Amino acid sequence: MSGHAGAVSDLVDQLSKLPGIGRKSAERLAFHLLRVHEDEALALAAAIQKVRTDVRYCSVCFNLSETELCRICSDPKRDATRLCVVEQPRDLLSLDASGVYTGLYHVLLGRIAPLDGITPDQLTIDSLVERVRTGNFSEIIMATNPTVEGDGTSLYLSNLLQEFPVEITRLARGITSGSVLEYANREIIADALTGRQRL
Amino acid sequence: MSGHAGAVSDLVDQLSKLPGIGRKSAERLAFHLLRVHEDEALALAAAIQKVRTDVRYCSVCFNLSETELCRICSDPKRDATRLCVVEQPRDLLSLDASGVYTGLYHVLLGRIAPLDGITPDQLTIDSLVERVRTGNFSEIIMATNPTVEGDGTSLYLSNLLQEFPVEITRLARGITSGSVLEYANREIIADALTGRQRL
Repeated sequence: MSGHAGAVSDLVDQLSKLPGIGRKSAERLAFHLLRVHEDEALALAAAIQKVRTDVRYCSVCFNLSETELCRICSDPKRDATRLCVVEQPRDLLSLDASGVYTGLYHVLLGRIAPLDGITPDQLTIDSLVERVRTGNFSEIIMATNPTVEGDGTSLYLSNLLQEFPVEITRLARGITSGSVLEYANREIIADALTGRQRL
Repeated sequence: MSGHAGAVSDLVDQLSKLPGIGRKSAERLAFHLLRVHEDEALALAAAIQKVRTDVRYCSVCFNLSETELCRICSDPKRDATRLCVVEQPRDLLSLDASGVYTGLYHVLLGRIAPLDGITPDQLTIDSLVERVRTGNFSEIIMATNPTVEGDGTSLYLSNLLQEFPVEITRLARGITSGSVLEYANREIIADALTGRQRL
């Protein structure tokens, strides 16, 4: 917006680049950062800088980490016979927060998406194959997103990994806990019926 | 969320403090800042720091400014006989963007809100009274927000300023351009009828 002081205008520009933050929200955030205690505003700036200098990818699984090996890869209590393949570090966090899975992870850092120009060689697939080749895994769980591209990536990987003596599984599909059948779409219902389980 | 590397967790905490940014959004923004080009992330951090070091309040009207006097107070072409009183710098920007008003402004930096513990002495009211006393204003336009607290603040100020030979006005209330009557509430309709204008 014309009329801002230069520094305010710059901040609004930078905030507008964030996903889901439009021009109006960026202005609201900028005025908030001008109004709060200076320490609070500077703490945010410092946190952004620190995250970019201190955080890297785990050299084994490509999870985010402040050390060479992430806390999961360096935890001897994790079940080293299971490997769960996810698209992004945030997916790993969601899965791990459930507490159900105690194995290791491999973060692809994306999914195969030819329409977006993302080909297998841009992901961490070579490392995955190498881990499966040299590791001692009995099961690889595909936990990519349940989208066309996520499913495609899982299929690609399961083809690639079928030469190894591992079981390849994927996350169950069905109705979601707490939802109502009335609002489930045809695809969800079909998944739920196909994968029905004995009570 | 437990499980984040420390620096990521810190960043999520800081981002969560922003208005309208919940925990999930903060995580999404943090991962975005980790994924984008380093220059872009650091540019945001720098913009926050710069805004807090370079931007201050105009010593006359309390608009945001990078100089002692803001661009409006230092503009000799502005009509120095009219003064428009607003709550926040962003209100000033909205009003000025309309291009209809060419006078000066006074930013209260808030509104009187006893329930939030905001009393008149926490606002820039002393400066306002001093400006009206020593200035040459013929009209003071109250442009606080059309809320209970905004209206209360305007009323308080107009009582305070009635000792001076100035006309005190407030922004017109009515239906908004482009809206439909069907969705206007009773209060809006009442304002529109009360303030009806000759065609």
